[in-house]
Amino acid sequence: MKSVLTLGEVMLRLSPPNHQRFAQATSLDLEFGGSEANVGAALANWGIQVRHVTAFPDNDLGHAAAAHLRKNGIDDALIQFSRGRMGLYFLEHGAASRGSRIIYDRAGSSFSRFDGAGIDWKEVLKNTDWVHWSGISPAISQEAADLVYRILQAANALNIPVSGDLNYRSNLWNYGKQAHEIMPDLMGMTQVIIAGTRDFNQCLNRDFKTIDEAKSFTFDTLPKLQMIVRTERQIHSASHNDLAAHLYTKDQEQSTETISVQPIIDRVGTGDAFAGGLIYSLLMNKSPKQSLDFALACSVYKHSIPGDVLIASIEEIEEVLRGNSGAIKR
Amino acid sequence: MKSVLTLGEVMLRLSPPNHQRFAQATSLDLEFGGSEANVGAALANWGIQVRHVTAFPDNDLGHAAAAHLRKNGIDDALIQFSRGRMGLYFLEHGAASRGSRIIYDRAGSSFSRFDGAGIDWKEVLKNTDWVHWSGISPAISQEAADLVYRILQAANALNIPVSGDLNYRSNLWNYGKQAHEIMPDLMGMTQVIIAGTRDFNQCLNRDFKTIDEAKSFTFDTLPKLQMIVRTERQIHSASHNDLAAHLYTKDQEQSTETISVQPIIDRVGTGDAFAGGLIYSLLMNKSPKQSLDFALACSVYKHSIPGDVLIASIEEIEEVLRGNSGAIKR
Amino acid sequence: MKSVLTLGEVMLRLSPPNHQRFAQATSLDLEFGGSEANVGAALANWGIQVRHVTAFPDNDLGHAAAAHLRKNGIDDALIQFSRGRMGLYFLEHGAASRGSRIIYDRAGSSFSRFDGAGIDWKEVLKNTDWVHWSGISPAISQEAADLVYRILQAANALNIPVSGDLNYRSNLWNYGKQAHEIMPDLMGMTQVIIAGTRDFNQCLNRDFKTIDEAKSFTFDTLPKLQMIVRTERQIHSASHNDLAAHLYTKDQEQSTETISVQPIIDRVGTGDAFAGGLIYSLLMNKSPKQSLDFALACSVYKHSIPGDVLIASIEEIEEVLRGNSGAIKR
Amino acid sequence: MKSVLTLGEVMLRLSPPNHQRFAQATSLDLEFGGSEANVGAALANWGIQVRHVTAFPDNDLGHAAAAHLRKNGIDDALIQFSRGRMGLYFLEHGAASRGSRIIYDRAGSSFSRFDGAGIDWKEVLKNTDWVHWSGISPAISQEAADLVYRILQAANALNIPVSGDLNYRSNLWNYGKQAHEIMPDLMGMTQVIIAGTRDFNQCLNRDFKTIDEAKSFTFDTLPKLQMIVRTERQIHSASHNDLAAHLYTKDQEQSTETISVQPIIDRVGTGDAFAGGLIYSLLMNKSPKQSLDFALACSVYKHSIPGDVLIASIEEIEEVLRGNSGAIKR
Amino acid sequence: MKSVLTLGEVMLRLSPPNHQRFAQATSLDLEFGGSEANVGAALANWGIQVRHVTAFPDNDLGHAAAAHLRKNGIDDALIQFSRGRMGLYFLEHGAASRGSRIIYDRAGSSFSRFDGAGIDWKEVLKNTDWVHWSGISPAISQEAADLVYRILQAANALNIPVSGDLNYRSNLWNYGKQAHEIMPDLMGMTQVIIAGTRDFNQCLNRDFKTIDEAKSFTFDTLPKLQMIVRTERQIHSASHNDLAAHLYTKDQEQSTETISVQPIIDRVGTGDAFAGGLIYSLLMNKSPKQSLDFALACSVYKHSIPGDVLIASIEEIEEVLRGNSGAIKR
Amino acid sequence: MKSVLTLGEVMLRLSPPNHQRFAQATSLDLEFGGSEANVGAALANWGIQVRHVTAFPDNDLGHAAAAHLRKNGIDDALIQFSRGRMGLYFLEHGAASRGSRIIYDRAGSSFSRFDGAGIDWKEVLKNTDWVHWSGISPAISQEAADLVYRILQAANALNIPVSGDLNYRSNLWNYGKQAHEIMPDLMGMTQVIIAGTRDFNQCLNRDFKTIDEAKSFTFDTLPKLQMIVRTERQIHSASHNDLAAHLYTKDQEQSTETISVQPIIDRVGTGDAFAGGLIYSLLMNKSPKQSLDFALACSVYKHSIPGDVLIASIEEIEEVLRGNSGAIKR
Repeated sequence: MKSVLTLGEVMLRLSPPNHQRFAQATSLDLEFGGSEANVGAALANWGIQVRHVTAFPDNDLGHAAAAHLRKNGIDDALIQFSRGRMGLYFLEHGAASRGSRIIYDRAGSSFSRFDGAGIDWKEVLKNTDWVHWSGISPAISQEAADLVYRILQAANALNIPVSGDLNYRSNLWNYGKQAHEIMPDLMGMTQVIIAGTRDFNQCLNRDFKTIDEAKSFTFDTLPKLQMIVRTERQIHSASHNDLAAHLYTKDQEQSTETISVQPIIDRVGTGDAFAGGLIYSLLMNKSPKQSLDFALACSVYKHSIPGDVLIASIEEIEEVLRGNSGAIKR
Repeated sequence: MKSVLTLGEVMLRLSPPNHQRFAQATSLDLEFGGSEANVGAALANWGIQVRHVTAFPDNDLGHAAAAHLRKNGIDDALIQFSRGRMGLYFLEHGAASRGSRIIYDRAGSSFSRFDGAGIDWKEVLKNTDWVHWSGISPAISQEAADLVYRILQAANALNIPVSGDLNYRSNLWNYGKQAHEIMPDLMGMTQVIIAGTRDFNQCLNRDFKTIDEAKSFTFDTLPKLQMIVRTERQIHSASHNDLAAHLYTKDQEQSTETISVQPIIDRVGTGDAFAGGLIYSLLMNKSPKQSLDFALACSVYKHSIPGDVLIASIEEIEEVLRGNSGAIKR
Repeated sequence: MKSVLTLGEVMLRLSPPNHQRFAQATSLDLEFGGSEANVGAALANWGIQVRHVTAFPDNDLGHAAAAHLRKNGIDDALIQFSRGRMGLYFLEHGAASRGSRIIYDRAGSSFSRFDGAGIDWKEVLKNTDWVHWSGISPAISQEAADLVYRILQAANALNIPVSGDLNYRSNLWNYGKQAHEIMPDLMGMTQVIIAGTRDFNQCLNRDFKTIDEAKSFTFDTLPKLQMIVRTERQIHSASHNDLAAHLYTKDQEQSTETISVQPIIDRVGTGDAFAGGLIYSLLMNKSPKQSLDFALACSVYKHSIPGDVLIASIEEIEEVLRGNSGAIKR
Repeated sequence: MKSVLTLGEVMLRLSPPNHQRFAQATSLDLEFGGSEANVGAALANWGIQVRHVTAFPDNDLGHAAAAHLRKNGIDDALIQFSRGRMGLYFLEHGAASRGSRIIYDRAGSSFSRFDGAGIDWKEVLKNTDWVHWSGISPAISQEAADLVYRILQAANALNIPVSGDLNYRSNLWNYGKQAHEIMPDLMGMTQVIIAGTRDFNQCLNRDFKTIDEAKSFTFDTLPKLQMIVRTERQIHSASHNDLAAHLYTKDQEQSTETISVQPIIDRVGTGDAFAGGLIYSLLMNKSPKQSLDFALACSVYKHSIPGDVLIASIEEIEEVLRGNSGAIKR
Repeated sequence: MKSVLTLGEVMLRLSPPNHQRFAQATSLDLEFGGSEANVGAALANWGIQVRHVTAFPDNDLGHAAAAHLRKNGIDDALIQFSRGRMGLYFLEHGAASRGSRIIYDRAGSSFSRFDGAGIDWKEVLKNTDWVHWSGISPAISQEAADLVYRILQAANALNIPVSGDLNYRSNLWNYGKQAHEIMPDLMGMTQVIIAGTRDFNQCLNRDFKTIDEAKSFTFDTLPKLQMIVRTERQIHSASHNDLAAHLYTKDQEQSTETISVQPIIDRVGTGDAFAGGLIYSLLMNKSPKQSLDFALACSVYKHSIPGDVLIASIEEIEEVLRGNSGAIKR
Repeated sequence: MKSVLTLGEVMLRLSPPNHQRFAQATSLDLEFGGSEANVGAALANWGIQVRHVTAFPDNDLGHAAAAHLRKNGIDDALIQFSRGRMGLYFLEHGAASRGSRIIYDRAGSSFSRFDGAGIDWKEVLKNTDWVHWSGISPAISQEAADLVYRILQAANALNIPVSGDLNYRSNLWNYGKQAHEIMPDLMGMTQVIIAGTRDFNQCLNRDFKTIDEAKSFTFDTLPKLQMIVRTERQIHSASHNDLAAHLYTKDQEQSTETISVQPIIDRVGTGDAFAGGLIYSLLMNKSPKQSLDFALACSVYKHSIPGDVLIASIEEIEEVLRGNSGAIKR
């Protein structure tokens, strides 16, 4: 059984039911989610041993978040219970012409105060086959950036492959550093980067006009980099998107067909489902093209599932790949 | 801050959840709504000072209805608590080939017994910038027709612009009068009329074949009339409609592009959202074309919101106008 | 008033709300359903006198199931309360690329142990105008197969028309018999068969390549057969299907136009709605083409209704036939 | 099997869930109920054949009400679908120091317009073993009073025993008649009267100080009267009541012990459960004391059940009588 | 009409439904509440004109909070929309032996950053008849303490009576000041203090053994003080409490009888209901004893209502005072 | 950290919400539970390492059940996914005079077919500090009885203490064996037996009149037995019970005080909470009296929590022991 380590914040997610606007809600659906743990949950679902590194407050909310991870098959041994508060986000589901809205309320979270110092990460990472991080963590706080740095260093020392989803978000990075001051080092320790042109520009402080420019530059300057992957989304409405994906190695490029998704039950976590599918396929030694197709099918399928997490069997994803999804299975 | 006065019945709305038919329901979602108050709520949301004239029974249901108006930012100072019952309507949400169904149960409502006599409406209307009524009120009872008449007279005396949504409904007008016996006088006191050819035919007892015929006649016979506006809806299914709108002044005609809406979360109140958007734009001195586009975007956006009321910021409507709605806003 | 007798298992249906996967559910929506009783419920809704033959355990669940039938207008006089358990099925509603899933849990049900021996079925069937069965019953157990046999024999003896929906399901037929050992006798007592090529192949142990082959063979070998009807479904996604239907007499063939359904609220019971519409039209002496169109409209309309049962008035179906469904009815 | 006919209005009942006040509700639980039909439902549950005479509007709400009666085992053959509206009542559940509140909204209901003229009630009542009415019907309208009169006349002609629950409510009797103008005739045709001193005073326009005075007078002046029954309720709070009951024949008096009920899940319909239990016992030829005890146990048990209707088996009531209720039954 | 000004934080309240523990919740009921605004809401319900001073973030949550205040009849003109986040609290409802639990998450809230500088509070307070504050505000932040100080100074300057609920909570006061450094000045500007011995000890840094000691000291040292009021609660379980109240003027003492409350639907806000009832009675010039009884009845009644706010009419409170609460009101 | 192994069936539990009867339910709350796993969950909550031995079907329901165990902190490594179905039970919550009802539907479950053969249980039990079983398992099937036998044998071989909750249920034991044919051997391998006189009589085929008789006999005939523990429950109503507990060693007897519980939120699992508390205390080397008191407090506390499982911290239980439960904790 393969073993993956993921790291990042897990937030309590609160969303009005039945397409209500925030102003209408008298109850909020409660979920937990966070980009990297979402990736871990998808992997755990497929029999991968997944450990997630995060920190929660030592109260009922923090322990409920840990229970969520366990329920999804994730090992909770690396969770810290510490000072700070539970990070939250409020999600309003859109429909048709109304886009979904997210209000983050994560300042001062336990995770943001956890820098990973004093832990022997090489010991922790023994027998680990893959490490996954995202650009959200270093954007939250210096401590979280340090945590990622420490873990990636240990992974590199042990020659464990690393994937990173750059996931640049302009409304983060509020602690005094800019992305390009922090991200290049982390990207330099990463074999598989999930990112589009805009992510590269922000994280490297460049002005690439095309993904090809970004690709040339990064493969030239990041010697450990082996693969860039990106998804492409055309938004017809909040309920109807088209999806495709592209994969670049130094010499080659692969693309999927475009898949149309309608209706969209829950848009959140569809990028994480993509990353989960990609990592799984690469761990299973699938070809780049097979991995890319599988990853996109995971993302497509996630759009039909409420919550942050892709809950799906390999067989269900393979049905999407065969194109005969949508029939009743009795 | 601009000040608008709206008048009309507000009903308690009861609808089965989760696309259930009436026969299946074991609970009903509770909302409040009424055409003119829906217009007022949209305007209040945008910072307009809105007062609504209506009457409720002096019981817990009536007071809950008043609280609904306050919650939506509407001033409740002009609400009467009086004899009569709370008007109700039962709404079954359709989907795909199944149209929505409404069962009205409003006979004997407090509003239907409120004629506005004994109130100094000119005093009430001081400092008011706009008055909005609809053809539903005069269709309910002689008292309600008198109420509209009294208020429009005062508005005309004070040179306050008046808009009216003719909204002809054949299953109203049960109190012994026909639309054409009542409506022409009210239309004659109105600057902006929202109506289609059928509305004009019913309200004027004519047989116009085209909106152009109706337009010529009305501009000729109603000297105060400055603008006719109408929406056009093509119904592919209960979940998929196309919308467009047209605006006519004596000399000019403006039209929007057609916008497709799919899925439809709640069809009710989309005409009121249109009226709200139109009045807002006109109050803000936008051009007829800008106003029409804004009004249609409001109507389109309302289709995505459960309940009777457009809850939206100006920025959200402007995103629809820019065509990039549907993306997640973080 | 026409009188119809239907027979078959009715199960308690449990499904996660709000598009949840089974793993996410903390409550399950409770319904009752079964192919033949669904047909009966549609007919009862239209004023047909319907009696349903089934068996339930003599506990609160069994009595709740009987209450469900009564609520839907079905006479409960022929229900047995006996040993065995309540048959269940778990239904996960799909969306977009995710197909719906059904987990049956019906082994050992009261119905599966009910063979109908010792009942004077000719006495029961007096004054009955139609009998409807489906291929699910004989697939459950020898006792259930015997029950169908006994009732069809009595119907044939009284010259009561019989319809049968072959409904072949490979995951049934677990009691030691194969479909082709049981079904031909039952089909031989049936005037109207609802089935596609695959159903005929499985039930007759043949390898027809086309429906025409199947049709020639069956009209030749089943002397009582008067009509074969089948539906055709093109699955774009779990939320979007296209439907058409075909009707074959020995000499003629009728087809409907194709109707697109989007979104699909509940796919289960849409075949039963079709059968219900067909039987109703034939009882009303409509032409084959009229009956086929009405049956397809029933099936289309059912896709918009949660639960197993078509709840619709004749007027509502006729609106679908007229093509102007989807508008609000006030 | 015994056959009972009940008559009276059935209303749609709407109540806020989870102890909310009306002002807080965003959904309302939907039930159906009416004093006499509640009695019928309890009886049907015990295998009595029950037919209920009432009228509903011919719309989806009226048909849903009929389905409610069928679900509860009541024969719907005597239901009229006619003009008028669906009677409603809004129920706010109290707790502790806060009493429950009911807002009736039943004016103009279909039942209030149904006078039963033109129906051969002697034909209808053939083979009926008992007729039950309540004082609510004659309080609603002259038509409803006439309906009761016609049916009681027929019952008397056929020597069918009649029970009546006087149920005096001061906020009814709004149609111009007072109780004492109508009720004495109806009471004169009734064998079993359920009433307390206040009911007798209002219905007979007297000023009895004690039930003994009322008893003497009524047995003297109403020659058909055989039994007076009354319940006694001590209200500690909305969640805690004590109950007892008394039965008087011309010569004898029986009393139950006092039973304490805490908590109260639903207070509505507990008097109807009492009446149902009484009629059942009398039909089963139980002694007055046995009947009174059984009736009180039914009332006690109903306090634990949400909705208007006593849903209970004979065994469950007998456990209350044996005093060992409250244990888990596995 | 009397006019009251209240000031304090309003939080979004999130609580698991149906007695769930936090670990079990998949949705949270959403309410808004805050001690002083709860007082204001009770008063507004009784026709008092109430303005509330607070600050919310300028996002959908903040605007929903303002809508909550408006819905409850509170004037929103003095609400600031500013930087900071929405204060939250998570409430787990207990039962029987399990006490309710509250997790506050209010650090960094908009209210905590609002010091009231730059506002002409004497202008704001013109025509105000009463000002109410609580000890929660000065415990949150220096800014909030300053806000209270500024408003009380203005009230004193205008001779407006002030009430303060000391409400000492040890888990607040985290900003570097202790209660006794801040509270004495604020208490010195207050006419009516609601507090028990422990509150006085903490706020004055004393060690009173009895309320009499505390009373003597405070009346001696706080020249503006006219009245001390305290409630007394005996907790039998989370579902069963006994309540009494005491009122002290310099020379006199009044006490209520003890009232038992069972079951408790929602314990939160019962102290605020008491304060609301007290202020109302004093504004209506009731005697101290009448005021105290009314206040306690308000508190008792609030225990039966979900949410933070007392929603009750004067008549309903008076029924509690008359001791005949708990009966159904039709 | 101590390590405990529990074994037994885990069922899907389905119960109508809001005190509905089965006949009223339109949804069912979904939980998972089983006596021994409930014990394990309580222990895991307190930091004990718990592994549970059971079997589930290899479908979505079985995997959801495993997720439930993980969520509650139980190690899922010893769960078998195999043929058979998911065991179910339907639970109707009672109130006041209406007892709760359970309908089991567990025949043919995966657990009932799992005999534990072929597993090296001594290997499995290495480093285990306690084993807990109940009399439900051997009552289900010969295979389940064999499974318990195999595990207890291994535990005895390794000198691991064993506790067993006899839990005699007459409606089980349907597979041809009687309790006294199977139980004595299992009791003979058990150090701590939880049982009352009736359990001993059924399991040993005796007719003890008192617990003292049973105690003498069992300590004489079961040489490994060290402790008998029993709870005593007085049922005032389904909402109000009194609880006490007694502990017997060969020479001594300990008793708790009686604790009254009102209201009861969920009665199911309260015996399992007792067993969990007992095992925890014994593992922590508490005295018999301390252990008994702690166990009873756990049971009392569980009555306030919905679902099968005691979710409580040690601190919360200790507050019950200190008698000051019921206050709000902020």
